[in-house]
Amino acid sequence: MRKGILIVVSGFSGAGKGTLMKRLVREYDNYALSISATTRAPRPGEEDGREYFFLPKEEFERKIATGGLIEYACYCDHYYGTPRAYVEKQLADGKDVILEIEIQGALKVRKQYPDALLLFVMPPSAGELRRRLEGRGTETREVIDKRMRRAMEEAEGIEEYEYIVVNDDLEACVRELHSIIAAAHNTPLRNKDFIDKMRKELEGEKNVTSILCRTN
Amino acid sequence: MRKGILIVVSGFSGAGKGTLMKRLVREYDNYALSISATTRAPRPGEEDGREYFFLPKEEFERKIATGGLIEYACYCDHYYGTPRAYVEKQLADGKDVILEIEIQGALKVRKQYPDALLLFVMPPSAGELRRRLEGRGTETREVIDKRMRRAMEEAEGIEEYEYIVVNDDLEACVRELHSIIAAAHNTPLRNKDFIDKMRKELEGEKNVTSILCRTN
Repeated sequence: MRKGILIVVSGFSGAGKGTLMKRLVREYDNYALSISATTRAPRPGEEDGREYFFLPKEEFERKIATGGLIEYACYCDHYYGTPRAYVEKQLADGKDVILEIEIQGALKVRKQYPDALLLFVMPPSAGELRRRLEGRGTETREVIDKRMRRAMEEAEGIEEYEYIVVNDDLEACVRELHSIIAAAHNTPLRNKDFIDKMRKELEGEKNVTSILCRTN
Repeated sequence: MRKGILIVVSGFSGAGKGTLMKRLVREYDNYALSISATTRAPRPGEEDGREYFFLPKEEFERKIATGGLIEYACYCDHYYGTPRAYVEKQLADGKDVILEIEIQGALKVRKQYPDALLLFVMPPSAGELRRRLEGRGTETREVIDKRMRRAMEEAEGIEEYEYIVVNDDLEACVRELHSIIAAAHNTPLRNKDFIDKMRKELEGEKNVTSILCRTN
C-alpha cells in the first residue's frame, strides 16, 4: 500500500482552495479532508464533525497540553487547530490527508511532518483575484481591500511551498493538483523505506557475488 | 509559451533509462534529447549528430576552454560532454531537454542550471536489476558483477535527485515520468517570473486601492 502523505494547502482568499479540495476528495478516492477543531460556536447549518469539531475551551486547551493538535492558532478570541488523531488514522489507512491552513500553520506542520507536501493555490492574476472577490457580491470594499493586502503578505511566503498551482480553469486545476500530488509521492524524502531496502539488497547482492566468486 | 527545463536522468545501468527516454521523446512533443559530444571513434552504424557528435580531441578541448560544454568527463582516454549550444537552443524553443548522465555530471549541470530537474530511474529491486543484466545475454559475469557494484555506489547519491522513478512496467513508467516532469514545472523555483509578476500586480492593486480610498 502506498503511504499516505500530509498535504497542506494554502493560498490567497478567493483563489478557490475550498472548492478545489472538495472536488479532489469527491473525484479521487485517495484523499481525506482534515477537519479542524475550534472553540467558536457553530453557525446555523454547521454540524459537529463535518465543518468543524466544536470543542469547549477547556477541552481544546487540554488537547494543546497533551500534543493532541498538530498546529493551532488563536483568531478573534477563538482557538482553531488540527486534531492529530484523525490525521494519523487517515495516513495509516494510506490516505493523502488535506489540510487547508495558512503559512504559519503550514510551517508548523512541516516541522513535525518533514515529508508533508506544501501547495500554494493562486489565481492567474491579481486583477482576477479582485474580480473574484468582488463577484461574490457579499463582501464590502473594505473587506476586499483587506483581502488584497493580505494576499500581498501571503505572497511573501510562496517560496516555502513545494508547488504552486494556478486556478484558472477548475476542472483542469483539479486534475493538475491530483497529478502533482501523485508526482510528489516520488521524491526520495517520501521513499526512504524503498531506498533503504534497495541499498540493503544491493549490499546483499555484493555478498552473493563474492560467494560465487569464491566457489568459482 | 511554457519555459523549457533541463532534465537530467541518471540511474543504474540496466534500469532502462535509454528506452524510457526514447519513448518519452516519441510519445510527447515537448521533449528533446540532448546529444553528447565525444572524442571516441564512431562504432559501426553510429552516425555523427545522431548517437553522438564525434569531435577531434583538439576541437573538444577548444569547446572546454570556451565554455561550450555544460559538463564533460573523461573515460578510457576519451572525452564525453554535453554541448551547450544545442541544449540552449531547445530550451529557448520551449522544449524540455533530456540529458542522460551520471551523478557527477548531474551535479555539475545543477550548478549551472539551478532549476534543472534531476530524475533517478531504478528497477523495482536489486534482484530484478541482476536478472535484467543477465537477460541481455551479452555480458560476462564479471561485467554484471561490476555493474551491480556500480549500482551500489550510485545508490549513495539518490537523495541528490528530485524524484525517483521505478521502472517496473515500461508503459506506466513513461506516463509517470511525463506526469512528474509536468508537475516539476510547478515549483516556485521554476516560476520565478510568474511569482514576481503576481507580487508586482498585488503591489499595484494596493496603490489602486489607496487611490480609490482617497477619492471615496
